[in-house]
Amino acid sequence: MMRLPVQASAEGLDVAFVGVPLDTGTSNRPGARFGPRQIRAESAMVRRYNGSTGAAPFDSLRVADIGDVNVNLYNLPESCRLIRESYQEIVASGCVPLTLGGDHTITYPILQALAAKHGPVGLVHVDAHTDTGDSALGEKIYHGSPFRRCVEEGLLDCGRVVQIGIRGSSYDPDPHQYCREQGFRVVPAEECWMKSLEPLMREVRAQMGDKPMYISFDIDGLDPAYAPGTGTPEIAGLTPAQALEIIRGCKGLNIVGCDLVEVAPMYDVSGNTALLGANLLFEMLCVLPGVKTL
Amino acid sequence: MMRLPVQASAEGLDVAFVGVPLDTGTSNRPGARFGPRQIRAESAMVRRYNGSTGAAPFDSLRVADIGDVNVNLYNLPESCRLIRESYQEIVASGCVPLTLGGDHTITYPILQALAAKHGPVGLVHVDAHTDTGDSALGEKIYHGSPFRRCVEEGLLDCGRVVQIGIRGSSYDPDPHQYCREQGFRVVPAEECWMKSLEPLMREVRAQMGDKPMYISFDIDGLDPAYAPGTGTPEIAGLTPAQALEIIRGCKGLNIVGCDLVEVAPMYDVSGNTALLGANLLFEMLCVLPGVKTL
Amino acid sequence: MMRLPVQASAEGLDVAFVGVPLDTGTSNRPGARFGPRQIRAESAMVRRYNGSTGAAPFDSLRVADIGDVNVNLYNLPESCRLIRESYQEIVASGCVPLTLGGDHTITYPILQALAAKHGPVGLVHVDAHTDTGDSALGEKIYHGSPFRRCVEEGLLDCGRVVQIGIRGSSYDPDPHQYCREQGFRVVPAEECWMKSLEPLMREVRAQMGDKPMYISFDIDGLDPAYAPGTGTPEIAGLTPAQALEIIRGCKGLNIVGCDLVEVAPMYDVSGNTALLGANLLFEMLCVLPGVKTL
Amino acid sequence: MMRLPVQASAEGLDVAFVGVPLDTGTSNRPGARFGPRQIRAESAMVRRYNGSTGAAPFDSLRVADIGDVNVNLYNLPESCRLIRESYQEIVASGCVPLTLGGDHTITYPILQALAAKHGPVGLVHVDAHTDTGDSALGEKIYHGSPFRRCVEEGLLDCGRVVQIGIRGSSYDPDPHQYCREQGFRVVPAEECWMKSLEPLMREVRAQMGDKPMYISFDIDGLDPAYAPGTGTPEIAGLTPAQALEIIRGCKGLNIVGCDLVEVAPMYDVSGNTALLGANLLFEMLCVLPGVKTL
Amino acid sequence: MMRLPVQASAEGLDVAFVGVPLDTGTSNRPGARFGPRQIRAESAMVRRYNGSTGAAPFDSLRVADIGDVNVNLYNLPESCRLIRESYQEIVASGCVPLTLGGDHTITYPILQALAAKHGPVGLVHVDAHTDTGDSALGEKIYHGSPFRRCVEEGLLDCGRVVQIGIRGSSYDPDPHQYCREQGFRVVPAEECWMKSLEPLMREVRAQMGDKPMYISFDIDGLDPAYAPGTGTPEIAGLTPAQALEIIRGCKGLNIVGCDLVEVAPMYDVSGNTALLGANLLFEMLCVLPGVKTL
Amino acid sequence: MMRLPVQASAEGLDVAFVGVPLDTGTSNRPGARFGPRQIRAESAMVRRYNGSTGAAPFDSLRVADIGDVNVNLYNLPESCRLIRESYQEIVASGCVPLTLGGDHTITYPILQALAAKHGPVGLVHVDAHTDTGDSALGEKIYHGSPFRRCVEEGLLDCGRVVQIGIRGSSYDPDPHQYCREQGFRVVPAEECWMKSLEPLMREVRAQMGDKPMYISFDIDGLDPAYAPGTGTPEIAGLTPAQALEIIRGCKGLNIVGCDLVEVAPMYDVSGNTALLGANLLFEMLCVLPGVKTL
Repeated sequence: MMRLPVQASAEGLDVAFVGVPLDTGTSNRPGARFGPRQIRAESAMVRRYNGSTGAAPFDSLRVADIGDVNVNLYNLPESCRLIRESYQEIVASGCVPLTLGGDHTITYPILQALAAKHGPVGLVHVDAHTDTGDSALGEKIYHGSPFRRCVEEGLLDCGRVVQIGIRGSSYDPDPHQYCREQGFRVVPAEECWMKSLEPLMREVRAQMGDKPMYISFDIDGLDPAYAPGTGTPEIAGLTPAQALEIIRGCKGLNIVGCDLVEVAPMYDVSGNTALLGANLLFEMLCVLPGVKTL
Repeated sequence: MMRLPVQASAEGLDVAFVGVPLDTGTSNRPGARFGPRQIRAESAMVRRYNGSTGAAPFDSLRVADIGDVNVNLYNLPESCRLIRESYQEIVASGCVPLTLGGDHTITYPILQALAAKHGPVGLVHVDAHTDTGDSALGEKIYHGSPFRRCVEEGLLDCGRVVQIGIRGSSYDPDPHQYCREQGFRVVPAEECWMKSLEPLMREVRAQMGDKPMYISFDIDGLDPAYAPGTGTPEIAGLTPAQALEIIRGCKGLNIVGCDLVEVAPMYDVSGNTALLGANLLFEMLCVLPGVKTL
Repeated sequence: MMRLPVQASAEGLDVAFVGVPLDTGTSNRPGARFGPRQIRAESAMVRRYNGSTGAAPFDSLRVADIGDVNVNLYNLPESCRLIRESYQEIVASGCVPLTLGGDHTITYPILQALAAKHGPVGLVHVDAHTDTGDSALGEKIYHGSPFRRCVEEGLLDCGRVVQIGIRGSSYDPDPHQYCREQGFRVVPAEECWMKSLEPLMREVRAQMGDKPMYISFDIDGLDPAYAPGTGTPEIAGLTPAQALEIIRGCKGLNIVGCDLVEVAPMYDVSGNTALLGANLLFEMLCVLPGVKTL
Repeated sequence: MMRLPVQASAEGLDVAFVGVPLDTGTSNRPGARFGPRQIRAESAMVRRYNGSTGAAPFDSLRVADIGDVNVNLYNLPESCRLIRESYQEIVASGCVPLTLGGDHTITYPILQALAAKHGPVGLVHVDAHTDTGDSALGEKIYHGSPFRRCVEEGLLDCGRVVQIGIRGSSYDPDPHQYCREQGFRVVPAEECWMKSLEPLMREVRAQMGDKPMYISFDIDGLDPAYAPGTGTPEIAGLTPAQALEIIRGCKGLNIVGCDLVEVAPMYDVSGNTALLGANLLFEMLCVLPGVKTL
Repeated sequence: MMRLPVQASAEGLDVAFVGVPLDTGTSNRPGARFGPRQIRAESAMVRRYNGSTGAAPFDSLRVADIGDVNVNLYNLPESCRLIRESYQEIVASGCVPLTLGGDHTITYPILQALAAKHGPVGLVHVDAHTDTGDSALGEKIYHGSPFRRCVEEGLLDCGRVVQIGIRGSSYDPDPHQYCREQGFRVVPAEECWMKSLEPLMREVRAQMGDKPMYISFDIDGLDPAYAPGTGTPEIAGLTPAQALEIIRGCKGLNIVGCDLVEVAPMYDVSGNTALLGANLLFEMLCVLPGVKTL
Repeated sequence: MMRLPVQASAEGLDVAFVGVPLDTGTSNRPGARFGPRQIRAESAMVRRYNGSTGAAPFDSLRVADIGDVNVNLYNLPESCRLIRESYQEIVASGCVPLTLGGDHTITYPILQALAAKHGPVGLVHVDAHTDTGDSALGEKIYHGSPFRRCVEEGLLDCGRVVQIGIRGSSYDPDPHQYCREQGFRVVPAEECWMKSLEPLMREVRAQMGDKPMYISFDIDGLDPAYAPGTGTPEIAGLTPAQALEIIRGCKGLNIVGCDLVEVAPMYDVSGNTALLGANLLFEMLCVLPGVKTL
């Protein structure tokens, strides 16, 4: 990742890039298992400094790529267990994980590990979907349900959860009811169209305060024109400029982890979805606590 | 289409999805004959409710997919005859056709059938091109001329015609002269750039009144970044958000039919142009008279 | 190009389209050597008149395509010499060259030829990158350094240089320092997001005055969603609408040459990057001195 | 499928095409869940008669497409149970299933259903891999193990099992040991190169006799040049001509079912892998007991 | 084409490359209208001499590319008239046309022009299909019927017609009956598999004698692995080596014209189908009467 | 590569995989600079043992991937110097390099380093082209000339050079004259068509004897159907089966190095050209001196 040194564990690191090559929680088009590989390949084009914000993450923090965690492609609950245990180890020594997904299922075991250390976390969640489904085909664990599982287990500080970019047709006449009932703030894509999101992010920063929070970024929050390489694209989404406004708007928050999920590179022969993923991960790195600006 | 039941005729239906797999009216890149097939495939991702507007079309209306009408790929005038006759049958029983094109030639025989029933109709026409050419290579019928043919046959209520998204280089120094002379309102893409189209649609609704009107949506009205899978792309077009504003802005109008044309899927390996087409057809369905909102 | 006559030299022409099929100055993904071929192919869709501005370039000026200049793919400095000499011949008789690149290296020898005739020129430079690097791998000539070479040789009137769309991560903590020191105006992409660039262009016109100026348009100035077919894409770039605002905003200036570079068509199977390039070249043609508006 | 009537169950049919859209047993590149959809789409080009063999299947047998069986994408053992039960129902009335996969995992529950009716079956298995792995990541059920599971449950008549096209690197120094120990005949790809397989098929027919047998055709048995759209391609495989020799060589055998698996269409933008799959399924249909030759 | 001079007419030429950008006779996937453009682009890789046979066509004959003939995309019979008249002019002065198709419909008017000059011609026809259909959708003219039209008009010397590579499913139980009745020799693909075609071509040369003959090569005669860019691919076809054996095997015959049809480049992003087409046209050129061997 | 350990130098290794990401010696389509990256990615599918030959390379030799050597993309002669020096270091300690190209230019400096250690080497060269050009555009160093440079510097034992798969049109009426004059054996593709190459390889083994020899495999030796991802494809080439026969036929020879060049992955979206490259490199590894067979 980003021509960083590769090391086997998170020991001694402030920040670790971690791949989670799992996609068997995907309801529609699989392929996100190759997200980590392709994001790493495209990240070769990401350079050392953030020319726009002046952030100098590699001068500020010890960062490395610790490779992929083990998953079991044939058994989703078992994969979740493996991920949770790996992340418990990563965060044990105070390292902040930046995750290359993988489908969105993986955020559930990651937040299990993070909440075990930090208590319930705030959440900035960019996505086309709320991912708060109850179950599908009778199964509780898949990429449409991670945040309901998190709520049920008390991993989220529900008054500090914001979901941005939500849109699309739904199975349910009132698709945001569950979220509202938990106290989530849902910002539909319609409220974002053709607008700067800086005002929104001012409110979000106030809401998050200085308590631990997490950024979960599903690449399908963006419009498919920018990110065709994903499994459940929805039309009329966010732009990359808005994505940068959201992430840069998190500067100053107490970020304890981030993920970028649902890059399925075979649906984008140009490689640009993975390039976008690599840049968004770099921008997340640039807003982590302790990153100096030149 | 949208996992709907398939039936052989429009009998007993309020609304019918109809495919018209014709593309021999295409001047540049053919392939729209596969539009219906690919839009149907991608429509598997469209769900039951409109999460954004609350529309519940399947709870409100009897809707089915009645398959493709017959066309004659080797004889354009004959194809037009076949389409006109099929649509006369569809509309005879009061069914509203939602058409999956096919190139834009097909709107001419469709409007022949609709005007025979409803009289001259108003038109919301989204497109990069006005499609009011006189003839090409000496032929009167092709995808650049349908609306001139409609004017000549009195199928349009010319004072209630709006063309949105028009742009691009032209064969003629004053390319909108014919349209202006008929009383059409031409809204060039330049007037739409980086703007919400809600104010425009308020004016359009006032102009349309409660008389019968038709929506004809050429996917090349959108920018090629969103809809690369089409035959005559033009740069600097509309966005999907604006497309939704236009269609949702037709809510309350007396819509007697809609089409979505010029999806040529082989130019978009991601499948997203067809996905866009499927969603726009769903949104058209959601604004039809009689659709309840939850 | 644009179904124009092909001729062997620029003699007797007001404007010549010229291809420069060189891409060995490329740092990341090569392929721009096929830019001229593909732009020409897609330009078949560009018609005679500018429907938006009313410009009638072919009624106003003698325009032809004079084919590709010779380059030496295995020797960059030698290629620069060949290009410079070809352009000296082209501009000798007063012809304005519109160049189909090729990677950005080629602007250096082109400006050598132009400045030899016109003296130091003003520059409207659209790009994701400033291209003012000093050297790479010890080499002074590659596609990241042309404008530093131009400054060193006094080819630019530095107080009339504007760079628009700059963004992305950088090797240097202060990536625009060199540009600022020369007196360039750098307009980062962030200042362009979701905004009309007409106000900017009013300022640019005032700055350029009536002295000779050049337009250098790197297609990666646009967002990769619109222009995936390029070698060093950067996320969150300009839109085609903004590109048109920039070029149309140059109307009235004393333009002595233009280029459109870095189209690498194999990364865009839809052909739309080259289509965009062809249209932008047409728009450049439409703003040249002497073009009448109908 | 092949423009056949669609019906909900196998009742009254001699032969049913059945889709099994499962790919979560895939070890490398997923996507075979879309095999049934794409094979059906490409089968539109398959016509009524076999011009080469004279077979007239639709004049001889009652054939229909009964759609897809239900699978549970998030739970492989549960999917196997669902498939087995569906196939028990299909074969109950004497119908022969022709399956559109899906990854190779599915052959295991299909053979459970068939062996329950017919007893242990013979097998012509075309593949790059023997698919007799014991387990992967501790899981017994995935696309590399179906035939070991079948052996363990006595579903195969091991003296009548032939595996053709086997090749590639292996985890094990003696990769065919297990197969040999069961009495399988393994025909490596090397023995097939540049040879007609008609002599082999004469021996196979003798070996199969007139007892029930099954054809399981993994598209990766073919060389990736012919079938790039698959998940675990191996170089230097069979040709389509050899595939036809194998299937046509089964004419006269007591075939009780067939499958064509591992078509992952997103890796083949030309559509030709699915076209190949559709044709191979047609050829299987043409050699079923009871098909007349004109 | 092959970096040849372009000229407006066939005057003074021994051989002319001619493009016929028509594809509205296509039954399945259109796109062959772009065959000429793409074959010309790929022919840039074809060099001056035939390294394998020693043929030196450009040292022996006056050859040029005379561009595309006019066609009417919206009217097939009218297109046929335009093509016939253009070819009458080309052959009037003794020039041999080498045609870049376009769909197979075009061979009908080409043979009208050739037979008017030379009388009924012999034919080496490489194809997956016999193209002797009577009509489709009631139309007599489309890409499945040219050779029946030719028979009806006495353009073919039926005792000297050979069709090679025929295969695939058919609408008719005896698909070759018509051909046999006319006295055509049909060589199914099955008779070609894994065999050198040199023995066949010895027989063909004897059959053709020294009377005028024509080569019509449908790229779908080849297997889709080699030529995916075509409209009606059929599995298990010829190889490029066999194609070269066929064409080289025509050396010494009285060839009065050749065509290479049905290259639809958008189905082959690698460009290799067009490259194959360009090379086969070069090989046809190399076996024309009067070409010297070094 | 092949999930091997990565190490910084060749010290302590019997065999090293080395990448050379250079493609600026390419005459037609560039992109081979990404060959090493893509071959490594696809090599994840290569397993530990050679199931066909029983070779167990990783049980026999110390093998690692030592990454890419440095190249200078903007200066070909300088790149050659860098490569030569890197390989001198690699072979100094007795390590055998297996190279992932890169265009064919790189074989020249590699053989400089090898001949400095071993004296003039024998050569098995698989390619569509002899690569013995004198110069292009006045330059001596590019991908069409490496073996002439090697002859001039006495790096090859010319009586032990075999070139297999040569074909295609040529600039020269007698394209193999130079090779014949040096005593090379040229085996044109025509002599390989539809034949096992085992007899040829028996002769090659006799010719090579037990003196040092090198294998240089240009992926364009194979037919473009198998290897579309390359820069100068030529039709009617070898098959992967023949490639395996050639490499396996080198077992027992005194191989001192091997390369696999000209994989340009962007021309093959399926990834299969790189997969082929990875497997051919594995097969080369399997025939190195000292590899045991189980």
